[in-house]
Amino acid sequence: MSQALLTDLYELTMAFGYWKQGMHERESVFLQFFRRAPFRGGYAVTAGLEGVVEYLNGFRFDDSDVAYLKTLENVDGSALFEKDFLDYLLGMRFVCDVDAITEGRVVFPHEPLLRIQGPLLQCQILESVLLNLLNFPTLIATKAARVCQAAQGDQILEFGLRRAQGVDGAMTASRAAYVGGCHATSNVLAGKRYGIPVRGTHAHSWIMAFDHELEAFEAYAEAMPANCIFLVDTYDTIHGVKHAIEVGKRLRERGQEMLGVRLDSGDLTALSIEARKLLDDAGFPNAVIVASNELDEYVIAEAKKNGAQIAVWGVGTHLVTGGQHPALDGVYKLSAIRDEEGSWKYRLKLSEKQSKVSPPGILQIRRYKKEGQCVADLLYDEASAVPDTPVLVDASRPENTLEFDASFEYEDLLVPVFRAGKQVYELPSLEDIRDRAHSELSTFSLEHKALEEPAPYTVGMEQSLFDLRNELIQKAEQE
Amino acid sequence: MSQALLTDLYELTMAFGYWKQGMHERESVFLQFFRRAPFRGGYAVTAGLEGVVEYLNGFRFDDSDVAYLKTLENVDGSALFEKDFLDYLLGMRFVCDVDAITEGRVVFPHEPLLRIQGPLLQCQILESVLLNLLNFPTLIATKAARVCQAAQGDQILEFGLRRAQGVDGAMTASRAAYVGGCHATSNVLAGKRYGIPVRGTHAHSWIMAFDHELEAFEAYAEAMPANCIFLVDTYDTIHGVKHAIEVGKRLRERGQEMLGVRLDSGDLTALSIEARKLLDDAGFPNAVIVASNELDEYVIAEAKKNGAQIAVWGVGTHLVTGGQHPALDGVYKLSAIRDEEGSWKYRLKLSEKQSKVSPPGILQIRRYKKEGQCVADLLYDEASAVPDTPVLVDASRPENTLEFDASFEYEDLLVPVFRAGKQVYELPSLEDIRDRAHSELSTFSLEHKALEEPAPYTVGMEQSLFDLRNELIQKAEQE
Repeated sequence: MSQALLTDLYELTMAFGYWKQGMHERESVFLQFFRRAPFRGGYAVTAGLEGVVEYLNGFRFDDSDVAYLKTLENVDGSALFEKDFLDYLLGMRFVCDVDAITEGRVVFPHEPLLRIQGPLLQCQILESVLLNLLNFPTLIATKAARVCQAAQGDQILEFGLRRAQGVDGAMTASRAAYVGGCHATSNVLAGKRYGIPVRGTHAHSWIMAFDHELEAFEAYAEAMPANCIFLVDTYDTIHGVKHAIEVGKRLRERGQEMLGVRLDSGDLTALSIEARKLLDDAGFPNAVIVASNELDEYVIAEAKKNGAQIAVWGVGTHLVTGGQHPALDGVYKLSAIRDEEGSWKYRLKLSEKQSKVSPPGILQIRRYKKEGQCVADLLYDEASAVPDTPVLVDASRPENTLEFDASFEYEDLLVPVFRAGKQVYELPSLEDIRDRAHSELSTFSLEHKALEEPAPYTVGMEQSLFDLRNELIQKAEQE
Repeated sequence: MSQALLTDLYELTMAFGYWKQGMHERESVFLQFFRRAPFRGGYAVTAGLEGVVEYLNGFRFDDSDVAYLKTLENVDGSALFEKDFLDYLLGMRFVCDVDAITEGRVVFPHEPLLRIQGPLLQCQILESVLLNLLNFPTLIATKAARVCQAAQGDQILEFGLRRAQGVDGAMTASRAAYVGGCHATSNVLAGKRYGIPVRGTHAHSWIMAFDHELEAFEAYAEAMPANCIFLVDTYDTIHGVKHAIEVGKRLRERGQEMLGVRLDSGDLTALSIEARKLLDDAGFPNAVIVASNELDEYVIAEAKKNGAQIAVWGVGTHLVTGGQHPALDGVYKLSAIRDEEGSWKYRLKLSEKQSKVSPPGILQIRRYKKEGQCVADLLYDEASAVPDTPVLVDASRPENTLEFDASFEYEDLLVPVFRAGKQVYELPSLEDIRDRAHSELSTFSLEHKALEEPAPYTVGMEQSLFDLRNELIQKAEQE
């Protein structure tokens, strides 16, 4: 079914307005970026571009879309859209250029994640869906990176299906969590569709289906001797661990090893220390302790600090919804439009807050490195020449400048994804995306990755772009 | 495509275990309920049953599902599942009975939203997806009801598409927000698919596509004279209002009326008061002021209290994600299973916290009313006889009992949805669901609906159920 109507109505009323004004094919540039890193952290990890590519390849209004739009009315009962406009939509084919930061990259506030260039009407209509398709996966890949960081190499299992925001909320989150570093998911459909490793053993209901916990563990061990992680807290955690040990011993007599136990309630740190001792004393030093129950990066970091003996963390709700920060604040702003003579006019949106002024131009981001470590990212205008030794100005601290001579390596982050509406970018495998995220995170110093109050990584404008922006701000303020 | 694998892996490993133990067709009852009302409120508004009905009607493993499951391995490299088990899944047809609370009802913690009865294996496998399909829509319908409550009859427009958690997160949220009382959505696909009214005018990018704001407003008025709500904060809100008035006057000369202005940044209350005065003084008393930007029930309540002159509220992120509470804590617990002789065994899960002990039995909820106002909800066991004048015991305050004589009206909330796997419930229209929510909310006194720290509405157990539960707790603790 066509998804062309997955947009806010105002995109279509504006599209109609542009069409009425004869501006609909005016070449324009829009930039998509976020203003604040989520979770009070410093960075984000990109995800979602694959969904964007799929969407744009299928972008087309069909008869049923137009039939629906034809029914819409103004408050005075007149038709909202004219028939000729709807015919235009029906015949329209996607012809834009799209450049984007690929999935699994580490990015910062104000950096364009996506730049689209093409007819004003097409760029405008796509605003809502592009934001939808990038905001959420990027949020969750970022959350996953933070959770993995807190776990310091322990395995993270994503357990969020039941609490995710809808079916696609769950599927998208499973994929994005894997990009951000999670090791496996409980979501079997995500395993089937994306090739993510899946994990799972049993729930409380297995225990409750039997008269006694011990009987339940025995039955489970009999059915699945090679997949025994016993959930021990249905009645009492420590008793549960003892029952698990009892069954573990009988398993061993039959030549199999219990893999571990899972704690799902109570003081996980204290219980894990007690359980670890019981398991070790009973001769099960290799049995792992898995923990779940309302985990996030803060709980895990705290538990690790307090000596928790947990090797595997099952993280659900907070990972797949973003917890207290359930949305990335991504926006999509017009940054350039050709005038009637065909010259570029650069645009920005003012705001009381400096940080909310949108950046003008046909922007690209250059990432500078020294000795393998990222130093700063430079926004520059692709339509202007970049000096040999560009100077970066930090808009929030304009006295801070940085000069990049030939001793720096660099890379431009936005890569061509569509040219004239045709896909020119080959989608990488999910494993490659995940590896990329992992290796790129290691090129940023720890201070920029602190879970809270990180030192800001430098993202600035090339000097001439900064000057141009100031000019535009002054001009707009004079109005 | 089959969605049978939209489940957590542990549901399938348990299913395999039940099958190996010959227990897979043992008749069982599972209850789905939440433990805490979301958003620190007192109630929830149900939504999502339509999605459940669709899912269950299509529930079936296909060849590709089984082919995928065949690839899964234990850590020792052995196959996770046996071929005969996978063949069983392939041939399996849904045969359960499902009773549920219909959409648009007001519900409280510990009340089963859904009860499923049938073969243990089928009930188990469906846990994850049923939670996914009910938790999120119920969360958002509840948020919408709260936002509408705060707005005291003002119009609420749902603007969340761009920040929603995925495509389906947006679609499901638009539908649930409408159930909870919102008046329209910006999401055009939700309008097309669900028949929800859609609304929208223009964004900042419209203004930025022109050299001057005034020119942009003029052009919009020319293109869409009957749909003029001018967004006034691109450069400076009050200047924007003055420009809107200027264009409004020219519109009027042409026989059209400006509908209003929209504020999207700054101190919305103060700006709305100033804008109202400017509009009134200029002869536009009927032009409405629309506001948007990070709104939720608290911001709206505060703005109303401070005299905001806002008639329409566009609510996005916080409405469609739940804001700081992005998940309903719904759970799904085994409450009864037949033993080998065919007698029911009632089950519960212990917890340190009384409130987390799951309820046993084949539960139904009876809602008692007096003079049109809801008084209390009584959980009772459908397999037992209910006394003529049942006594309610409040588990959190067992000394509080209530007796229901013939002077009360009552209604049982769980209604048959599937019988032996066949749908027996006719889905109501979305409008009927929304009306139901609206009228039912009015049958609860204000103290139970306070946005924060509401007085708890009484939900208790019928005396004999309460006694049975205590017996089961004691038995389990003695183990």
